[in-house]
This record gives sequence, C-alpha cells and structure tokens, in this order.
Amino acid sequence: MSMWALPTCQAPHADPDTAGHTKITKIFITHLHGDHIFGLPGLLCTLSLQRSPDASVVPIDIYGPLGLRSFLWRSLELSHSQPLLPYAVHELVPTQDQCPAGEFRDFSGLDRGEALAQAPPGTVLHLDAETDSYLLLEDEELSVRAFRLFHRVPSFGFVLEEKPRPGKLKVHILQELGVPPGPLYGELKRGRAVELSSGVRVQPQDVLSLPVPGRKVCVLGDCSGPVGPGARRLCGQADLLVHEATLEDWGDGR
Amino acid sequence: MSMWALPTCQAPHADPDTAGHTKITKIFITHLHGDHIFGLPGLLCTLSLQRSPDASVVPIDIYGPLGLRSFLWRSLELSHSQPLLPYAVHELVPTQDQCPAGEFRDFSGLDRGEALAQAPPGTVLHLDAETDSYLLLEDEELSVRAFRLFHRVPSFGFVLEEKPRPGKLKVHILQELGVPPGPLYGELKRGRAVELSSGVRVQPQDVLSLPVPGRKVCVLGDCSGPVGPGARRLCGQADLLVHEATLEDWGDGR
Repeated sequence: MSMWALPTCQAPHADPDTAGHTKITKIFITHLHGDHIFGLPGLLCTLSLQRSPDASVVPIDIYGPLGLRSFLWRSLELSHSQPLLPYAVHELVPTQDQCPAGEFRDFSGLDRGEALAQAPPGTVLHLDAETDSYLLLEDEELSVRAFRLFHRVPSFGFVLEEKPRPGKLKVHILQELGVPPGPLYGELKRGRAVELSSGVRVQPQDVLSLPVPGRKVCVLGDCSGPVGPGARRLCGQADLLVHEATLEDWGDGR
Repeated sequence: MSMWALPTCQAPHADPDTAGHTKITKIFITHLHGDHIFGLPGLLCTLSLQRSPDASVVPIDIYGPLGLRSFLWRSLELSHSQPLLPYAVHELVPTQDQCPAGEFRDFSGLDRGEALAQAPPGTVLHLDAETDSYLLLEDEELSVRAFRLFHRVPSFGFVLEEKPRPGKLKVHILQELGVPPGPLYGELKRGRAVELSSGVRVQPQDVLSLPVPGRKVCVLGDCSGPVGPGARRLCGQADLLVHEATLEDWGDGR
C-alpha cells in the first residue's frame, strides 16, 4: 500500500489506537507484488470490524492495477468476509511496455462475465493517450491522477493536486465599500460580483487577496523509471515528490 | 495457521532470526477465515526467498479446507510470485453439517478443469466414513489425521501421533551373550532375530527394553464442538490437547 487519504468527515473511533485506520476511505496500490497487496484483504476486514454501523455507508475506494479486484473479491469471498464492508475497486489497465518483455500477463479476463455480477463494484480505467495518464478522481478541491512506471510488473505513480483556493476577503475594504457581513461575503468569496442596495457594484477581485496556489504531492511506486511522458508532465512543480532511491548507471559494474 | 512441523534435516539459515522459518515443510490450516489464511501467501514468498538453492527441491505440503489451493494459486499468480517455491496443497472436503445451515459454500468448482493444469499439485481428501477422519500422511514414524469441527465455516482439528519406537538395547545382556557391536545390534533393534557365529540364536525381546510409546498431540481449530465421532475417537489418551476455551452453556443468558 503506498498512500491513503484520511478525510476528516468521520468521527474518530472510540479506540484511539485505531482512530487512524477507521478514517481510511481511499487506498492506492502501485503494483501487484505480494508485499504490496497481500495485506489488503486483512486490512479491509479490520476496517470492516472497526467501523461504526452508521459510518458503514461510506464505501472505500481502492485504486490499483488490473487484477486487484479479482484478488480482493476472491480472498474475501473464500474467507466468508463478504460483504461486511462496502468497497469499490478501480483498476488501471497497464500497457505492455511497463515491464520486461515476456513478463507481462494479461489479467483482463479474470472474473469477468458470469462472476462479474457477484464481484464488488468498480471501474476499469484505460490510459488517456492525450495526457498519458489516468484520471482517478476529481472534484472542486483536488484531482488524483496516475501515470505509468517501469518495473518487474507494471507499476504506477500517483499525483494528488489541490486546486487553487480563493484568496482571503479583505474585510477593511468590504467595510469601506459598505458591504454588510453575511451572504454577500460568500458570493464574493466564490468569485461572483454583487450589487449593494445603494446600487454600488462590487467585483470579487476588488476585495479578495490573490488565490492560494494548490499543493502537489507525487508518489512513485517501485520502479526503475517512467514510461512515456506522463510522469514528467504531471510531476513538474511538485511540492513533495516521493520516489525510489536506486543506483545510478555508473554503479552497474561494482 | 495452526501448526507446523519443523524437521531437522535442513541446515539452519545463515540468518538466525529466520532459521526457524526456513525449516517449515508442512503447514496445517484449520479453516478459511481471513485471520487464518491471509498471511499464507506472504509466508510462502518469504520462505521462497530465504531458502538456499540446494534446498529448493524440498516442497512444502499445505493441508487445509477445500478452496485453499485456489486462494494460494491465484494470490501467487497475480503477484507474479509463482513458481519460486515448490508447494502442494492437500484439500480436505468438508461436510455441510460443519457450519450453520445456509452458511455452507461449495468451493469444489474453483479453478478446476482448464485452470487445474497451471495450479500447484495437490490432492483432494474426502472423509473416510469408517474412521470419521481424513488421513493426511503416514510413515514409519508418525501419522497425521484430521477430524471435523463445527464453526461459522467448516473447521478441522489435527492429530499428530507418533508410532511406538523400539526399546533400548540392553548392552550388558548383549555382551553376556557375546553379540559383537555392529550390524547385529541394528538387526535386533529392528526386531529381527540374529544368529551368532557360535550358533547361538538371539531373539530381540531378550535384549530390548519395552517399546517407547508414541506421543499424541491434538490441536483443535476454532470451533464450538466436534462433528461426528471422529474427534473423540482420535483424541483419546492424548499427551497434549490444544483447544478453544469457550463459555459453557449456562453462561448464555448473562
């Protein structure tokens, strides 16, 4: 498991030791090697047991390479752990050039067709050729994209990018202009012009500080390098970049 | 994982921290709940990495309920961990009365047919109606049998039973009889009569102490009780019995 998002919308669990875990709603898997996926069924079972009943409607979204949904579904099905926890698996379809020739295995046929109906929900995400990336999720606050990496098995990196937030309201200017505190403040904050009862029209740029730039966090999974231009395009200007520390080529002969 | 056998025929691993693990050649799984099987693929990968190349011909035998072979094979296949380690899975076919009605799931169709050829080798063991047990293995030194238990999912207990060993040679009697140390000692120890060059015939019972009784170890998996007479038949006179500590019926109303 490479990363997880901890939203703040759920009440902390009664047991402080497990408070962090119960908040997990998104899990990102870089590749299918055993040390990255074998713990996942157990984690889902633990989360399922720890969740309070009223929080159980919040599903867990899991993102990872094609084949992950079959692995999770079969593990939980066989151990009779299904369906204590609602979860969805969103699978990234790798390209064959993400691993050495001959190592690539096609998992596109796993548990499709008849078995599909019983498996957990999810989506299958194909590479967007234009951006050389996969769009995993996007809302008003942030976007998450994946890009291709080269490894013994296809691997992926992830970019979490916040969107710019509106600047702060300059209260002293609002007061000078005679804007009454309340809903009009909200309109201006959201970037919309307002008209006062006096007939004066106030533009948002008149009362807002500069927008706050969004932060960008890039996490690369196990790899020996990027595949295609996606990684470089997405990771430029990163605020935080987490990557493998591998030897340079000159060390090969040592 | 409930038990394992640690034979002494392999050289200890260089790393003392992992010396115990590398000796595992048999693994016994009581039932398919996640906390009993989810760690198994990772353990096999670790064992595979730790084994010295010359020891790799010793396969690991894994015994457990029907469905285990499919779980292991798919987990290792998907994570590209196959076939670093030779292993065989011997599956016990449970009976429907080993769990609450409606909870029983038939895994007999999992990965049979076409997929079977790629899966690891193994056997499918059906209940022997006469003894109400499953014979897992038997050699000159010991036997291992499984018996049925009742749980939320079918569960099994295991009995390891040593066979009686020959008594010790009474050396002072051998010397009195004029038996020369060497191969004749071995013959007598194996229970065969020998004839000396003097023409004297020596019977094994004349020179052997009483046979050493074999020990019996019984390990019950998660359960609320036995199914059928197998458990009671097999576990009588046990030297060691490991079982669940559950509440008695009188505690139900508390």
